[in-house]
Amino acid sequence: MSDQPQMDFQASLAARAREVETVLADLLDARAETGEITRPERLLAAMRHGVLNGGKRLRPFLVVETAALFTRSADLLDAARRVGAALECIHCYSLIHDDLPAMDDDDLRRGQPTVHKAYDEATAILAGDALVTLAFDAITSDRTALDPLAKVRLVSGLARAAGIGGMAGGQALDLAAERDAPDEAGIITLQAMKTGALIKFACEAGAITGGAGAAQVEAMGEYGAAIGLAFQLADDILDATASTEALGKRAGKDAQAGKGTLVALHGLDWTRKQLIGLVDQAEALLAPHGIRAATLRAATRFIATRES
Amino acid sequence: MSDQPQMDFQASLAARAREVETVLADLLDARAETGEITRPERLLAAMRHGVLNGGKRLRPFLVVETAALFTRSADLLDAARRVGAALECIHCYSLIHDDLPAMDDDDLRRGQPTVHKAYDEATAILAGDALVTLAFDAITSDRTALDPLAKVRLVSGLARAAGIGGMAGGQALDLAAERDAPDEAGIITLQAMKTGALIKFACEAGAITGGAGAAQVEAMGEYGAAIGLAFQLADDILDATASTEALGKRAGKDAQAGKGTLVALHGLDWTRKQLIGLVDQAEALLAPHGIRAATLRAATRFIATRES
Repeated sequence: MSDQPQMDFQASLAARAREVETVLADLLDARAETGEITRPERLLAAMRHGVLNGGKRLRPFLVVETAALFTRSADLLDAARRVGAALECIHCYSLIHDDLPAMDDDDLRRGQPTVHKAYDEATAILAGDALVTLAFDAITSDRTALDPLAKVRLVSGLARAAGIGGMAGGQALDLAAERDAPDEAGIITLQAMKTGALIKFACEAGAITGGAGAAQVEAMGEYGAAIGLAFQLADDILDATASTEALGKRAGKDAQAGKGTLVALHGLDWTRKQLIGLVDQAEALLAPHGIRAATLRAATRFIATRES
Repeated sequence: MSDQPQMDFQASLAARAREVETVLADLLDARAETGEITRPERLLAAMRHGVLNGGKRLRPFLVVETAALFTRSADLLDAARRVGAALECIHCYSLIHDDLPAMDDDDLRRGQPTVHKAYDEATAILAGDALVTLAFDAITSDRTALDPLAKVRLVSGLARAAGIGGMAGGQALDLAAERDAPDEAGIITLQAMKTGALIKFACEAGAITGGAGAAQVEAMGEYGAAIGLAFQLADDILDATASTEALGKRAGKDAQAGKGTLVALHGLDWTRKQLIGLVDQAEALLAPHGIRAATLRAATRFIATRES
């Protein structure tokens, strides 16, 4: 693969990130929404610190690009950016809570102090809490131009992807992994929940927002599951090989914590081969969309080969 | 006031609590819902510890009784119990997080060890997190027999009542109150956010679920705001006068923490007079409903005169 498609992809990822950051900044505005009393400054600042921090915005990207497979309506693509911003609020809340001393105890995130370091633990807990509800507010807001049934499906799907049977449950399994030493099936379940569920749902959410039928929502969910697993394998490879400086967060921490990964179980070569298999599987799911899926195709390769 | 109406009210509160606990137990079942992967046992047990703990279930009670002002449909009253259970998940999550060492640092809740004492801090944080998403799952579930627009309004209202402009923001202001020593207006804002917003929304949610029109949803919101403030004043009076044993949690902790309350500012007599004024205001808002509001009328008096 030449470097050109990757450079083009980086540019479109960055362009989408700027669009969604406009929505995120608007959601994190100082003005209270209808039904709110007032927005305490320090808590809002902590939420902004945890969200407006130069993330790649991969989940919003997947929502918007998947929606774009099914619609060209400016209103629906605008709604997709808002839904994407909601998923990013959930992703950022999970990072804020995962970084807490009682969890992974990290001081550094994307090269910056984590929220509990920049503020304090109580504020970091509350900033995460308030980002969860902000996500559901963003989806159901009058400003999100979707019919009520689509909003209900999005809230339900996001709640389940982020909850005990998804992301939060995955983090619980991850914390237990230090003592439990899960086997291969356990590791795959853990990863499918901790990072996979929200990435999978990003693709389903894009399809729902774009007005896709049930079979197409399901197919995009399969695509999302494949790239979610690929994303995690790439993360495990990075954790085993990259420097703290390149990652902007502490490297090698999984190995230090004695946590099982597929890399530790099967080695780097096996894991890289698995990655290639997942990329093939993901690309097959995009095939029916032809040229319209060019950006998602580049995203698939980016996820599997990223260096930070 | 004779003791008889209070005893009758206690019985109907307990009956409603049993009904909502059936819904809560169902929501906290070990079986994963559609879209979930699996429910980790220890995390689920911690969520159950934080929810199925003999609470009064005041918020669900308010949802169901307010709905009953507007509908006699068994399906809608069943939906009201599910919406009430969702609010209780939010209430219980807030107690779990407020009790954490980084927040109020409490070991005891309703006479039992708090979740981080019974389990550990990380599990308590995640149990709270997973209860937030479970609440939104409960409202939007296919098993909640409401039209999509009603569900969207409920999700939006709950997200805002619980978020930075409501409960979570109120907890942030409460933590800051130790250094900031808020004035009377500051204390009222803090209390309206920390406890008032969710109680107010419980009454709005009941009206929405019961199919009430906009003016009636608003009127029930005013009723909820009045009893929410009454609830907090009664809490401040209890904190200043009751024993730890009677409360089932540490008494006098606000005074110890140097936090301003209206009791500290104006004394017990003034606060008791305020309470009577709020009860009158709340009862005036119930007047149009006549005999149908008998239980809510008893609830109003219970909230103002409760002893634990």
